[in-house]
Amino acid sequence: MATIYDVAKRAGVSVTTVSRVLNNRGYISQETRQKVYQTIEELNYQPNELARSLLSKQSNVIGLIIPNVSHPFFGEFTYAVEHYAYEQGCKLLLCNLQLDPVKEREYLKMMKRNQVNGIIMGSHTLDTEIYRNLNYPIVTVDRFIDDFPFVASDNEQGGRLAAELLIKKGCRKIVHICGNQSLDMLSNLRTKGFNNTAKSAGIETVVLETKMNVFDQEEYEYIISNMFAAHPDLDGVFATSDIIAAHVIKKCEQMGKDIPGQIKIVGYDDVSIASWICPGITTIKQPIEDMGRIAVNLIQKQMNLESICQKNILPVELVERETT
Amino acid sequence: MATIYDVAKRAGVSVTTVSRVLNNRGYISQETRQKVYQTIEELNYQPNELARSLLSKQSNVIGLIIPNVSHPFFGEFTYAVEHYAYEQGCKLLLCNLQLDPVKEREYLKMMKRNQVNGIIMGSHTLDTEIYRNLNYPIVTVDRFIDDFPFVASDNEQGGRLAAELLIKKGCRKIVHICGNQSLDMLSNLRTKGFNNTAKSAGIETVVLETKMNVFDQEEYEYIISNMFAAHPDLDGVFATSDIIAAHVIKKCEQMGKDIPGQIKIVGYDDVSIASWICPGITTIKQPIEDMGRIAVNLIQKQMNLESICQKNILPVELVERETT
Repeated sequence: MATIYDVAKRAGVSVTTVSRVLNNRGYISQETRQKVYQTIEELNYQPNELARSLLSKQSNVIGLIIPNVSHPFFGEFTYAVEHYAYEQGCKLLLCNLQLDPVKEREYLKMMKRNQVNGIIMGSHTLDTEIYRNLNYPIVTVDRFIDDFPFVASDNEQGGRLAAELLIKKGCRKIVHICGNQSLDMLSNLRTKGFNNTAKSAGIETVVLETKMNVFDQEEYEYIISNMFAAHPDLDGVFATSDIIAAHVIKKCEQMGKDIPGQIKIVGYDDVSIASWICPGITTIKQPIEDMGRIAVNLIQKQMNLESICQKNILPVELVERETT
Repeated sequence: MATIYDVAKRAGVSVTTVSRVLNNRGYISQETRQKVYQTIEELNYQPNELARSLLSKQSNVIGLIIPNVSHPFFGEFTYAVEHYAYEQGCKLLLCNLQLDPVKEREYLKMMKRNQVNGIIMGSHTLDTEIYRNLNYPIVTVDRFIDDFPFVASDNEQGGRLAAELLIKKGCRKIVHICGNQSLDMLSNLRTKGFNNTAKSAGIETVVLETKMNVFDQEEYEYIISNMFAAHPDLDGVFATSDIIAAHVIKKCEQMGKDIPGQIKIVGYDDVSIASWICPGITTIKQPIEDMGRIAVNLIQKQMNLESICQKNILPVELVERETT
């Protein structure tokens, strides 16, 4: 009976490559993949036992890399990931990356050593090459990198919905506070959706970028103070998180500006605070729970060699409260 | 040379018990502990190799059990635990308990199977006997259970500080919204400190308990609505979390009650939202970061057989903002 070594030799690739193809891990060119599958058929190789043996080494742990679990969005996302991981018999190993490349490298090494089932990556600083070379199931959050499957919400539609509402409510000069546009994030599509909609309607817009995609209260206060100083005539704000929206509300209260009379505000995410702070924040709801569920499923399906969809873009929803 | 079996035989205990004593794990009576130590001395037994072999089985993973990481207090605590665990070369396995005893049992089994270094327990539903029988380093958060080391902040002092401030600011009828007093939580001491201080000053108080120590927005709204209906003359609220305080603020805004003119509010925790919602919440600051650091240290010290302090009560601090 043919072995994995026979397959590797005949296909002219390494045993590792055959194993990668069989386990759908790591980057493998389409050509190599086809050659391996063809050889497997030719030799009538039965990979089940290997697959089983590899599978038996599973730790049933899923690694989650995020910027900071104390940010409400990532707290709620982490909660969902842990919940659905548990439902699938898996445990969650949590890494707050804090934009630390040394920590990132160490975690990736450790996750490999501990044979985690896969990694859900919601933050990274290292070149993505290192993720490809891990040969592990990976799911990215809000990032479109090579052929990694990803989960995101419909950011462009979110930007459109926010712009449409603010325009419908009468805003004539809208400031959009967004993340760093030079980072490779799908959330940048919010800005695209917002800008296109505002442009079509002939509405003046200003885009202000935060430096990093991490929670930095001082930076938010600085940007918002400067925003009101530079654009005293603004009448609408579209913030890329409910946290930033809350900071805008605080500044308006301090300046005696009426919400929604003088300034209308739309946030993003619909984390729980959006509903219980005062005034309640009108926001674009991301389906955080579904995003966590699907991220876990994408890891498990890769483990089980099931076919998966690469682009998992979930619908967003406008939730109107008291800031518009 | 004497072996662990010789020690066990002569001391009249099992090998497991000797191992427990050497590794300072699990519940061992003071008598047994002394007998084992005495026998070790008599036989001149050198336990280092055993200790080393046991230690080499360490996974360098710390388990953290909390109610829900999306609650801001536990989000910030988890962030701190993961940060300091990483500094000590450890990774964090996160369990959102959600008051689920089946989940708790499964996690404990899994943590034992995976030889975690220890467990930081901030929520439990099962009898604590199961934790004793784990034979693992345990640290509890805000719980005084048997001889487990714990980390907490000075809850009684927190209650005193809150009462003193509200009284100083002129409150004459103060409602205290607290956790379920039938649960075995050190945070119940907040109520004691508050009640004693108010009583000494001859101030009328009302204590309202929430059902569970988990975040439940609907329950908060229900309790707060009832509170204003039953006590229209209340002029101060001491809430046992900033989240509850935020819900009180929201209700006051809806009812047109001026803060701090008509109602003064003190929260608890000083999670980040306390400073950036409007009005900023006067609160009792728990040293969340230090609590996480010390919890991790207590696990590592137990692992390394170092002596530890059982009661780790950290100071709290009054932070005055705009609600008083």
